[in-house]
Amino acid sequence: MMGRKALDYEELNENVKKVQYAVRGELYLRASELQKEGKRIIFTNVGNPHALGQKPLTFPRQVVALCQAPFLLDDPNVGLIFPADAIARAKHYLSLAPGGLGAYSDSRGIPGVRKEVAEFIQRRDGYPSDPELIYLTDGASKGVMQMLNAIIRNERDGILVPVPQYPLYSAAISLFGGSLVPYYLEEEANWGLDLVSTRQSVAEARSKGITVRAMVIINPGNPTGQCLSEANIRELLNFCYQEKLVLLADEVYQQNVYQDERPFISARKVMFDMGPPVSREVQLISFHTVSKGYWGECGQRGGYFEMTNIPPKTVDEIYKVASIALSPNVPGQIFMGLMVNPPKPGDISYLKYSAESKSILESLRRRAQIMTDGFNSCRNVVCNFTEGAMYSFPQIRLPQRAMDVAKSAGKEPDVYYCLKLLEATGISTVPGSGFGQKEGVFHLRTTILPAEEDMPAIMSSFKKFNDSFMDQYQDHSRL
Amino acid sequence: MMGRKALDYEELNENVKKVQYAVRGELYLRASELQKEGKRIIFTNVGNPHALGQKPLTFPRQVVALCQAPFLLDDPNVGLIFPADAIARAKHYLSLAPGGLGAYSDSRGIPGVRKEVAEFIQRRDGYPSDPELIYLTDGASKGVMQMLNAIIRNERDGILVPVPQYPLYSAAISLFGGSLVPYYLEEEANWGLDLVSTRQSVAEARSKGITVRAMVIINPGNPTGQCLSEANIRELLNFCYQEKLVLLADEVYQQNVYQDERPFISARKVMFDMGPPVSREVQLISFHTVSKGYWGECGQRGGYFEMTNIPPKTVDEIYKVASIALSPNVPGQIFMGLMVNPPKPGDISYLKYSAESKSILESLRRRAQIMTDGFNSCRNVVCNFTEGAMYSFPQIRLPQRAMDVAKSAGKEPDVYYCLKLLEATGISTVPGSGFGQKEGVFHLRTTILPAEEDMPAIMSSFKKFNDSFMDQYQDHSRL
Repeated sequence: MMGRKALDYEELNENVKKVQYAVRGELYLRASELQKEGKRIIFTNVGNPHALGQKPLTFPRQVVALCQAPFLLDDPNVGLIFPADAIARAKHYLSLAPGGLGAYSDSRGIPGVRKEVAEFIQRRDGYPSDPELIYLTDGASKGVMQMLNAIIRNERDGILVPVPQYPLYSAAISLFGGSLVPYYLEEEANWGLDLVSTRQSVAEARSKGITVRAMVIINPGNPTGQCLSEANIRELLNFCYQEKLVLLADEVYQQNVYQDERPFISARKVMFDMGPPVSREVQLISFHTVSKGYWGECGQRGGYFEMTNIPPKTVDEIYKVASIALSPNVPGQIFMGLMVNPPKPGDISYLKYSAESKSILESLRRRAQIMTDGFNSCRNVVCNFTEGAMYSFPQIRLPQRAMDVAKSAGKEPDVYYCLKLLEATGISTVPGSGFGQKEGVFHLRTTILPAEEDMPAIMSSFKKFNDSFMDQYQDHSRL
Repeated sequence: MMGRKALDYEELNENVKKVQYAVRGELYLRASELQKEGKRIIFTNVGNPHALGQKPLTFPRQVVALCQAPFLLDDPNVGLIFPADAIARAKHYLSLAPGGLGAYSDSRGIPGVRKEVAEFIQRRDGYPSDPELIYLTDGASKGVMQMLNAIIRNERDGILVPVPQYPLYSAAISLFGGSLVPYYLEEEANWGLDLVSTRQSVAEARSKGITVRAMVIINPGNPTGQCLSEANIRELLNFCYQEKLVLLADEVYQQNVYQDERPFISARKVMFDMGPPVSREVQLISFHTVSKGYWGECGQRGGYFEMTNIPPKTVDEIYKVASIALSPNVPGQIFMGLMVNPPKPGDISYLKYSAESKSILESLRRRAQIMTDGFNSCRNVVCNFTEGAMYSFPQIRLPQRAMDVAKSAGKEPDVYYCLKLLEATGISTVPGSGFGQKEGVFHLRTTILPAEEDMPAIMSSFKKFNDSFMDQYQDHSRL
């Protein structure tokens, strides 16, 4: 013991060691190795559209490029390569950010950009929004981590998290030393939220001495792709009201909806529609980002969270903690401003911007369909339609023999399947166990992001692998 | 109790509430209020050069602007407004970052940029550096927080921090629930580090049941501005070796040196010069950033840390935790690459880049002198010369009556003085109590960043305020 040093593995903070993060876990590491060896890898493990060839929208890039190089604004040739509205918008953001992109902003973000976010929320929901309650962040993940850090005091504090879930939540809860309380989404009901079983989860946690303090929803769902109905959201808001739970509404995929029956509706709008007491009592934090949607500007790390019904003293504490790292990156803040305030009809760049956005979104919708259909055509695979977000989450019904072989290789059955898939096809997915799933049921997550023209070949390569895998391991004695 | 919700102030994580962050504390908030009321405020509370008018270096901004707008690279007019070496460099970084600035990178940063950082370190220190042990971060602060989070397990884990210190350290240690163990810098010895008293600090902490696990040094110093001598660094490395302490070397001001007797020398170089056992045993983490130096690109949030003698399993754990927030912002990573690999003699942009850098650095050197001399010309003020970094940290010898008045106003004496200074002159500083100081001794911190041409007026306005303040509170009975 005495011979050890603080950064020896045995001496590290146990919460750090407990963290699991499957999206960049064993499968990702193996895929990276294979890539180094020269194999062509299709990275569908992370929702990272530009990495798979999605082109950035032109207008926001023009504006941010000009903000990075403000000396261009005085160049007589600038009009030859930048449209006038991009130039005007760059000047607008530089006027909001004294010192430009190279100066720390206020730790909550640039006030003028927060105002643009508030105006967007008001247009979207029909209720006013206060810029003082909107904090800009380096992507939504950082905001989620800030809030969980403020909520979790010790291992007896529980956070309700959907299962399957995006592993940001399980990882951050481990890191901050809290307890994850799972509530199960119903695969047979298109991954709907069932409050009866959620209440059981809360009761069970309580019986173990855990105080459930907050509930996470991801809408549209990751990895499950469902869009929550208004009625479902109303139900869960009532539940949060009764149980005095903070609602953490991860709404980063709000632009990504691929069906028309259930358009995106924010938890905040439903809450205000419900009126008091729910609208005045439920503590709600809503998250958004520039990484998803048809922007897909993941690498820029722009995001925000909005606080509703949070006491002012708490808002100040969140500000204080945000101050430690001084400020979110300023270019990412400008992207956030541009996303909530895009070119309008009549602007020079409007037609191009609309055409680019529409083309991405329509292609995603087609890809969601191709992928769902592709999975459902495979042996022992069933898959709900991707109503929203960026993922497909098929259930893989593994033969007993495959599970036995996986077990003897020391792997979870879904990890084993995904590794074989990777080695056979180069398709890099994430095993369902990284997101949580019911006992004995197996999935994988893949993004719907490969280029549309590559999709048929990818799905046929998947089918070929899967069907021959099933062939190999099928328990023929049972046939 | 039962009626409370998790985000009520009373219910928050106590560690969050305990955090103090003076750089954006009471003084900053008051200054922001006064600014809203129309008063002209000189913000010298944060080392934020661009906010005070420092112009960004042209070449890196050209490169990053082109990376943001890769479609410009095909524009026939691009050569009219961008030099050829900026265009070539943008293509270079886009080739290193598949998917460009809009794609998440590896959570450790872009491999090609980490390689450029390793080459820079090798040129600087004369010893090879391994890119696999260099992680890019959103500014140095985020890296410091990651490492402290890995080290601190509970309140019995102590971190040696210089006093006066930069409050990032005290804030992060509070947030992660550890114990700050102060070691005092010696103002009379130009803020030198005295290991005799440091050993006493460690012994005292031990007697309270605290295990000291790591030691922070800030070189050049913040807020104290001293540059550590090679002999001093050697001494403290021996100390870390004997006590098995991780050394956290905050070297973000390594470009900011304003005297020639003690040029910057990295802890890593001294350690390797010493040879074994120190060079093989001491666990060292070194931090750097694009926010300081003559770049001052604070808002871009670029930084790195390098790990030396850290076991591979720990390196993997740090990687895993970094993965939770997916990736540092990619434009900030490109800035880091550009900073460690600037234009070379013979490049088209070399002369301009050198002239811009030199002009900023020489002006900072002159401003350091003007400020030190200005403070030393004031009544009851003594100030060490700013050898490096970006701050002046004068001692203010407050008359007893001023302390009494402050006490009856419920303020620390230095806070009271700084508030009066702010209200009289608009100069926004940070009271010494925010950094820690010896009992009964008072300071303030100001940056040396106001424009050089404004400096004489600022110092004369300070002197006028100070001398009349001293006049007002001087205990005349004692004269």
